[in-house]
Amino acid sequence: MDAPFATRIRDCKRRLEDVDAALLICFPSPNLTYLTGFEETPSERHLLLFVPRTGDPVFVAPAMYDQQLASLPLDCRFWNDGDDPVELVDDVLEEILDQPRGERQTTARDSADRSTADDTTLLVDDRLWATFSQDLRACVPNATFGLASTVLEEVRIRKDARELDALRRAGAVADRVSLEVRSRGEDLIGMSERELAGEIERLLASAGGGEPAFSTIVASGPNGARPHHHSSDRPIEVGDPIVLDFGAFVAADLEGGTGRYPGDQTRTMVVGEPPAKYRQVHETVLHAQQAAIDAVEPGVTAGSIDRAARSVIEDAGYGDAFVHRTGHGVGLEVHEPPYIVDGNDRELEPGMVFSVEPGIYLEGEFGVRIEDLVVVTDDGAERLNDSPRGWATGSVGEQ
Amino acid sequence: MDAPFATRIRDCKRRLEDVDAALLICFPSPNLTYLTGFEETPSERHLLLFVPRTGDPVFVAPAMYDQQLASLPLDCRFWNDGDDPVELVDDVLEEILDQPRGERQTTARDSADRSTADDTTLLVDDRLWATFSQDLRACVPNATFGLASTVLEEVRIRKDARELDALRRAGAVADRVSLEVRSRGEDLIGMSERELAGEIERLLASAGGGEPAFSTIVASGPNGARPHHHSSDRPIEVGDPIVLDFGAFVAADLEGGTGRYPGDQTRTMVVGEPPAKYRQVHETVLHAQQAAIDAVEPGVTAGSIDRAARSVIEDAGYGDAFVHRTGHGVGLEVHEPPYIVDGNDRELEPGMVFSVEPGIYLEGEFGVRIEDLVVVTDDGAERLNDSPRGWATGSVGEQ
Repeated sequence: MDAPFATRIRDCKRRLEDVDAALLICFPSPNLTYLTGFEETPSERHLLLFVPRTGDPVFVAPAMYDQQLASLPLDCRFWNDGDDPVELVDDVLEEILDQPRGERQTTARDSADRSTADDTTLLVDDRLWATFSQDLRACVPNATFGLASTVLEEVRIRKDARELDALRRAGAVADRVSLEVRSRGEDLIGMSERELAGEIERLLASAGGGEPAFSTIVASGPNGARPHHHSSDRPIEVGDPIVLDFGAFVAADLEGGTGRYPGDQTRTMVVGEPPAKYRQVHETVLHAQQAAIDAVEPGVTAGSIDRAARSVIEDAGYGDAFVHRTGHGVGLEVHEPPYIVDGNDRELEPGMVFSVEPGIYLEGEFGVRIEDLVVVTDDGAERLNDSPRGWATGSVGEQ
Repeated sequence: MDAPFATRIRDCKRRLEDVDAALLICFPSPNLTYLTGFEETPSERHLLLFVPRTGDPVFVAPAMYDQQLASLPLDCRFWNDGDDPVELVDDVLEEILDQPRGERQTTARDSADRSTADDTTLLVDDRLWATFSQDLRACVPNATFGLASTVLEEVRIRKDARELDALRRAGAVADRVSLEVRSRGEDLIGMSERELAGEIERLLASAGGGEPAFSTIVASGPNGARPHHHSSDRPIEVGDPIVLDFGAFVAADLEGGTGRYPGDQTRTMVVGEPPAKYRQVHETVLHAQQAAIDAVEPGVTAGSIDRAARSVIEDAGYGDAFVHRTGHGVGLEVHEPPYIVDGNDRELEPGMVFSVEPGIYLEGEFGVRIEDLVVVTDDGAERLNDSPRGWATGSVGEQ
């Protein structure tokens, strides 16, 4: 298997050994893409990668994928529509779990006379659908089930140079679109949120982005008070604060596989004069974001970054209006560890990438959120976004 | 709760009674949308709908959704980022599972002196992520876990008039785009697969479709031999068979909620003269599709429809090259029951909707697939797609 996938599988197997788990089972998900470079949408068909602690990985897949998987240096076992895929899964589990355990053969546990499955821990993909979990539990009813993140979270949380390169390019794509939207000023008036969201997605593609990393959020006026608003038919009016949250995937340069890394940026803009208390609220969010980013360095906890942003907003009297955590890690997933949330004791390390996105949401009035991605460096943070963070649009906004 | 959601929840509760399950737990998925009209992307945050056999549903959701959920007539319980959502889940489970069981109070089982959870069956969303399943199992370790499809599959498998209306409109959107692409003839030459896929997605939006129902497949020349090919940079050449598989979601007209139904159509077209054996292969697939659709009527099995298509292809000597099932049900999910696959004994009923999409895949040469959605009627099938199924493009193709 070509680098970096061989290395990642090796890392994963070493960690299975560390936690005394026999096997990791992935399903179409970022974990599968991370380990193999193979990307697919989850579906009802059994498509499962088995990574045993010892021995080679086995990929169970529908026969219709045989050509797509031919380039992967993996032991693929195919099933046909009309076959029972669970029979194949059962065979593979038996083969893996009953095989001689290599380096563990000499331990007392293995010489005991009992079924292998009784003391076996299987780690399944955190996103594995319940329908597949049920099948696996039926195959090995006595096994203990854990989550793949037990081993893969630590492998994935620090980004390597190829991943950071993709994340920087995704940041630059979002920056270009942000600048373009801001420059349009009065042309935004009268567009519906949905139309502007569509236009942003077209601009992301023109700027070199792949698919949108998530449904583009355009939340104008009072809709901005809903952090996860779905863009609606509401037309944008003069003086509306407009929360714009978007990003596109960008492919990483990985030999022999794919992997897409997202941009994720939020700006809040206004065409014309904003509502009375808007300026102060925008300024507060901006300061909160800067305070959080200033606090980033190796060794501090994720929770302390949340605290840094939250203190600024609380001090300004808007504590109750900051209704979500300060950020989330970003990698193959748009939301992944480390979560920048109160009480998270995880210490930051160089190579971690996450969003810093404080917001203030005033029901019936408006919302403000400002978001950039940052990477933890040896002595602080590097922002992956660099477009203006103010609210003014048109020629004013471009200054 | 407004119709149709109140009716659907009532149906669901009655079926929980039938299978003696205490509770259904949904997660952002088509099941959740079906029951509530609320649509969201699955994420790492606990967002779970609890539908007890007796009593009212409870929705556990992140506090950031409080405004979005305000319009739903549901008992919503919110948790804040920084709280432990599992504590709230645990409280809700205790409240639901320990409450007096209404009509079952008089049975022998309920008078026994033991913990409620010991004989309790919980049905979880078939797509529930393993990370949430693990949390639920930790809360009620003695419960038996089943799948939501046990009750919801039967509720969802027959489409009502509003659903059929949306599916017909989604079919018409795909038809318009298919006609447009076919009419372009020589203009397709030199476009990359990816460019044509992007153009198809723009056309779907212009024709009134919402988001693409799945990643548009443009598989040209030898790439057509991969049924789930990802559109690539390969430029389309004169004489290439081009497999075009696409569709967009269309919103159903549901009071007080959303629900999106997909189009899903495949055509295989050629600009110029096709390869030597192409004509016969295309003709075979066309006959296979017609034979399958002719076989559709209430009371026959899903498996028999697969057999009808497969026989035609086997008789032409291409049996080994038809590497997938003949079709899949379509509703809120692009792939759902009934699956049109060998051995499926499910009898067809009026209102079921599924794809009929036989194909022949010749490695290193080309592929042909022709797909339409059909709805089972009282005495046969109605096609939801009506665009030409031949291979010719340009002015010839329009005839």
